[in-house]
This record gives sequence, structure tokens and C-alpha cells, in this order.
Amino acid sequence: MLTKETVTHWFKELQDTICQALEEADGKGYFHEDQWQRDEGGGGRSRVITNGNIIEKGGVNFSAVHGKLPENIANALKLNDSTFYATGVSIVLHPVNPMVPIIHMNVRYFETSSEDGNSTWWFGGGIDLTPHYIKTKEAAYFHQQLKTVCDQHNPAYYQKFKKWADDYFYIKHRQETRGVGGIFFDRMGEAEGTKETLFSFVQDVGSAFAPTYTYFMKNNAYLDFNGTHKNWQMLRRSRYVEFNLVWDKGTKFGLETNGRIESILMSMPPQANWVYDYQPEEGTAEAETQALLKKDIDWIMYA
Amino acid sequence: MLTKETVTHWFKELQDTICQALEEADGKGYFHEDQWQRDEGGGGRSRVITNGNIIEKGGVNFSAVHGKLPENIANALKLNDSTFYATGVSIVLHPVNPMVPIIHMNVRYFETSSEDGNSTWWFGGGIDLTPHYIKTKEAAYFHQQLKTVCDQHNPAYYQKFKKWADDYFYIKHRQETRGVGGIFFDRMGEAEGTKETLFSFVQDVGSAFAPTYTYFMKNNAYLDFNGTHKNWQMLRRSRYVEFNLVWDKGTKFGLETNGRIESILMSMPPQANWVYDYQPEEGTAEAETQALLKKDIDWIMYA
Repeated sequence: MLTKETVTHWFKELQDTICQALEEADGKGYFHEDQWQRDEGGGGRSRVITNGNIIEKGGVNFSAVHGKLPENIANALKLNDSTFYATGVSIVLHPVNPMVPIIHMNVRYFETSSEDGNSTWWFGGGIDLTPHYIKTKEAAYFHQQLKTVCDQHNPAYYQKFKKWADDYFYIKHRQETRGVGGIFFDRMGEAEGTKETLFSFVQDVGSAFAPTYTYFMKNNAYLDFNGTHKNWQMLRRSRYVEFNLVWDKGTKFGLETNGRIESILMSMPPQANWVYDYQPEEGTAEAETQALLKKDIDWIMYA
Repeated sequence: MLTKETVTHWFKELQDTICQALEEADGKGYFHEDQWQRDEGGGGRSRVITNGNIIEKGGVNFSAVHGKLPENIANALKLNDSTFYATGVSIVLHPVNPMVPIIHMNVRYFETSSEDGNSTWWFGGGIDLTPHYIKTKEAAYFHQQLKTVCDQHNPAYYQKFKKWADDYFYIKHRQETRGVGGIFFDRMGEAEGTKETLFSFVQDVGSAFAPTYTYFMKNNAYLDFNGTHKNWQMLRRSRYVEFNLVWDKGTKFGLETNGRIESILMSMPPQANWVYDYQPEEGTAEAETQALLKKDIDWIMYA
């Protein structure tokens, strides 16, 4: 039987592996670690990288927290008098060069047990890519990596989780997607498979992160860019801020339940700009990207 | 009997007066106007100023919208099958010089009438000041202006609305106030006075805005500042973003009810920076400001 300790241990190792791969690919930036304790139980290891050659600011966070289920969540989940255990790894990276995409990944495991002997568990996770400049071939490459992982576990996963990501990483008030999406899944429990098979899927998702993102680091970090590109990057970052602070459930959950603020908001970019009613000029690369910030694009078609 | 048309007309004139006073004090920036229509009824005049001598980016918006009360609001207000009319002026100004404070003001009127003949109306509003560097004497001056306005109408208003502002303009996840507060009031209706007397109070609040803020423009816009001050300004602006996107009810209401996005988000600063776990060094002006971001400070005491 797969225990929460095994899952936790693996997530911790995943954090190590990813940090090492990113430091190697960056060549200059290194992760600063903060260990923190949660008053009500558990804690985490936040790792933040700043001023790298390639990564301007980013975080790779591990946490494992437990205790009494907060009331509002207990109500939402219809679980009274329960204790919970939650562990996961969360990543957001903001690159220096606007030609390198922003990336986000999260993998998580959650379980509860209540006084009357009921217990429940599930996995969740997701990866999505936010290129400042969308290149369809790159989006296709990214989605192909995710599809390969998904297909090894269930032929239905990729389509289902790709659509879920389109719906989740959506800036409703702008009616645009955050980027080119990826995959998103939540509450994958007994109905979807054994704990072992689902963990194996989540492990493969987690393990795909480093090779996928370092591909973009290696290929794009030294492409030319100018002031126009930087300005556009700052605008795209402000949309990232809007998504995370207004719509992202994980961020809202953290802010409303008194989580460790600096770990939750490690997803914020080093700098973001807002320009009133900015519309990219027709025919520009910026307008081209704007036009691709839509749900339901079959990116793999562009391979 | 005071009509909604009279209130609306006065708010429109207030927008004109304030824009003129700000342009005069700025000496370079001017307001660009966008008129917009709301599909479901009404519209507005958004006015945005950018790249002024003193104001880097800001908005002074007027709107008057009406129609069927959106279902979630009808439920929250326990008013079914109602129509509503809402009009107001909203202002946020982000200055160039970190020695000039950010300011916000909103004055609004709201009424509903339902099919069964029930109707209700109220006024709301608020002004709050967010100095990048808090000077207690300046905070005292600001609060004294507001107290003078309040005292002319009701000796209890200032204390009550000052406390309401402390509670409202509070960045809960940071456990700090947005700035030095000001006054905030909402749902001032029949229980608090006649429509005429309450409108008169709201008019005096609105009219106090221009002289109060231009005082800071004139006195502080040409004070010296350096890179350290600018960096701190960018951090304080990121807290402003966090408050508006995570906690501000007006912003959330607008984003969730399909308001005009560019008008709602005119409150966003031109640039904001996030630094992981930034702590100002002891003994610095930044640490001094940080220590003053607290509720329940009796600013007037510092006059």
C-alpha cells in the first residue's frame, strides 16, 4: 500500500531534481532555500531563484501540511470533523528573455480522514506554458511532451486534461487564455484508478517538467530581443498577475487560509506593467500572439 | 425630491472639475476620454491621464449604469426581480515621484426598484491615501481635511468612517493597511438621513478631493528622490495591485459582472515589482513606513 510518506518523499526528491536541472541550465542563478513551519502542522521548503542568466525570478516550492481541515474547506468538500494531509510541488518561472516562455507546474496529493472512520484521497496537478510570443511549433512541442506522458497511462487523459487546462488557465475578465495551456487535473481518486497507478501518472508528469522547460531555456535564452519585446513581456506578466490574484484557486486558497504569503506569491513576476487599453498593432508579432490566446486550439496539429 | 438625474449630473460635473484641477496642477499630462456603452443599459466616461509631470498614470471615471439587477447581487441584497441604477465617480492616481502619495476616491449612488413596488437607495464612498513614504504630519493633514468635511455633517461620521476605512483598505494576507487610510462608508440610506442631506455630505466629500490631492502634488512633486526610493515605490505599488485584485469589492464586482475591464483596471499602476521576502533594513525610511501600516492610528494627533 502506497503511503503518504512515500508520496511526500518523492515530491521532495522531485524538488531537488528540478532545482538541480534548472541551476545547470541557467549557469548562474541558484536557489535560495527557506524552510518554514506551519503553526497548525507541517511546513515546507521554499526555493527561490533570482537574477539568473536565463531565469529572472522563480520558485520551486515543496510543502507537506496537515491538521484539522479548515471549516470553509470542510464545508465545500462536505467533510466534517476531518483531518487532512496535503503535499505537493509548485513551480513558476519568469525568464529574462521574452523569447523564453513563463512556465508553471503543480503536482499535489491530498487526503482526509474523519472521526467516523471515513477517509478519502486524491491527486491533482497541471503544467501550463505562457509564451510572451507564441510560436505554434513550440506550443506543439510542449503539448506533444504532455501527450506522450498522458498516453502512457490512459488514451483519454490528454484530451480531457488539455481541455481542463484551457478552462482553468483562462483570464475570464479578459476573455483570453493565460498562454497556450497544457494539462490540468484535480481530485483524481478511487474512481479513476488505484493510488499506485495515479501516483505513477503524477510522477511522470513531474518528471517531464525539467527536460521540457530546459529545452526552451537552451533553445531560446540567447535569441535577440529589443525594447518592444521587453515592453510586451511586462504586459503579458501583468496578465499573469491578474490571473493568479483574481482567478487561481490555489493562490486564493492560500491567501484566504493564512498560508505562507511569500511562498504563495513567489509566482509574482519581478516586474509587471499596465498600459491603459493597450491594443497591439495589426500585423505585429504581438497581435499574432494575442490572436492565439484562445481555448480549444489543437496545438499538436502545428507540429 | 432629489432625483437620480440630479445626482448623476452632479457626478459628471465633479469628474469635469477634478480633471481640470489635476491637469492644471500637473502642467503637462492631460486626460484622454473614452465613452462607453453597457449592453444591458447605461455607460460611462473613462478618463485616463498618462506621462504627466506629476501623475504617471491615473484615471478619473464617471459611470451611470442601469438594468436588471444581476442575480448574484439580487441574492446578496435579498432583492428579487429588481431593476437598479448606479452612478458614481472613481479615481486612482499613481504619481511619478515616490514622495507624492497614491490616492483613491470613490463616490456613488445606488437605487433599486422591484416589481412589487419596493424601492431602496443609498450612497457610498471613500477616500484613502497611500504614501510610498509615510510622513505623519502629511497623514495628519489629510485626515484633518476629511474630518473637517465629516464634522460639518455629523460629529460621529469621522470616527466611524475612519475606522471603516482602516478595516476596508486592509491587505489581509499581508496583515498591513494599504496606506494611512481615510474614510469609507457604504449603504447610507433612509436610516441615516434624507436623500438630500446624505447627498450633500457626498458632495462635500467629492469636492474635497481636488484641493486635498493638489496640495500633495504642489508640495511634494519636486522633492528629490533616488533609485532606492523608486524601488520601494514599485514594491508599494505591487501591494496596491494585491489589494485591488484580491480584496477590493468594487474591483471584484466589476470583474465578475462583466464590467468594462479597462475602466475597472485603470487603478493598476504603470509598473509594479515583486521581490521575494523583502524586508526593509532597520532604521531606514522604508522600515519606518512599514511600521506605520497599521489600523487604528490616530493620525490627527500628529498634526
